Amino acid sequence: MQPFVSTREIETLSKPLYFEDLAIGQTFATGTGTVDAERLKAFAAEFDPQPFHMNEIAARASFFGELVASGWHTAALCMRLLVDGELRIVGGLIGMGLEELRWPRPVRPGDVLRVESEVLDLRPSRSRPDRGIVRMRNTAFNQDGQTVMVQVVNMIVPRRPPRES
Amino acid sequence: MQPFVSTREIETLSKPLYFEDLAIGQTFATGTGTVDAERLKAFAAEFDPQPFHMNEIAARASFFGELVASGWHTAALCMRLLVDGELRIVGGLIGMGLEELRWPRPVRPGDVLRVESEVLDLRPSRSRPDRGIVRMRNTAFNQDGQTVMVQVVNMIVPRRPPRES
Repeated sequence: MQPFVSTREIETLSKPLYFEDLAIGQTFATGTGTVDAERLKAFAAEFDPQPFHMNEIAARASFFGELVASGWHTAALCMRLLVDGELRIVGGLIGMGLEELRWPRPVRPGDVLRVESEVLDLRPSRSRPDRGIVRMRNTAFNQDGQTVMVQVVNMIVPRRPPRES
Repeated sequence: MQPFVSTREIETLSKPLYFEDLAIGQTFATGTGTVDAERLKAFAAEFDPQPFHMNEIAARASFFGELVASGWHTAALCMRLLVDGELRIVGGLIGMGLEELRWPRPVRPGDVLRVESEVLDLRPSRSRPDRGIVRMRNTAFNQDGQTVMVQVVNMIVPRRPPRES
């Protein structure tokens, strides 16, 4: 069983970013990761034990017609790509929640995924002056450039302390 | 390392449900599952390797102030509870996507989770007469009754074939 690892080294920015470092329209890439069939089945066995995620033969008679990854496995794999990717935030990547999470196409064993992120919106927190909310769209693509997942996420991002400005 | 398993046996309905068997306002329960510290860290190591998901000491200096589960781990654990829970659908639990996914409170090692599902909306597919879209809210609670996750999901549910009606 191969762990899922990014296969491309990302040139990360020298310093993690504060809220003030981000701008609407900025984009960030990730490396790529290959979906392993054994890990796909192991994830399903633990978290989503349905036939179309666990067994090639049973999957043929299912809605999908083939073995596909649990959508939660796809989301988890993309989180790994994001954590290893270009976008680095002071204090880490912390999501409050998502406004949208779609899986337009299934992910299959052997697929090579990558994620592109775009800053959609930036707003300072009204209640907490030390942070802001950054709305981002994370789009995951397979090796054929097809979209396999779309997320719109609200992240908590620290504001730069006055002495550092 | 303990796998996450439901600790309460659910009295499942005798037959999986078709679209026609569902009604707005219906609710479905799941069993409960306990969040294991070692599994929490192992999930993070594979999918979300950030200090506040991996190490108690490092987590104290983080945004969360304590070790917490990756939101994707919480989502995956709740999927397992749902698959083992009361709501059984013909062909399986298949989500097209979510309109909302929030984590109002962090999940910590030792937390005992359960999920309640409610049917919010039912609409036959316009393009595919053999299926419908069921909008559901899945709410996950911890042992203190606090909400730790809210999802609004659109599921694909087969319509009952004419000969079975």
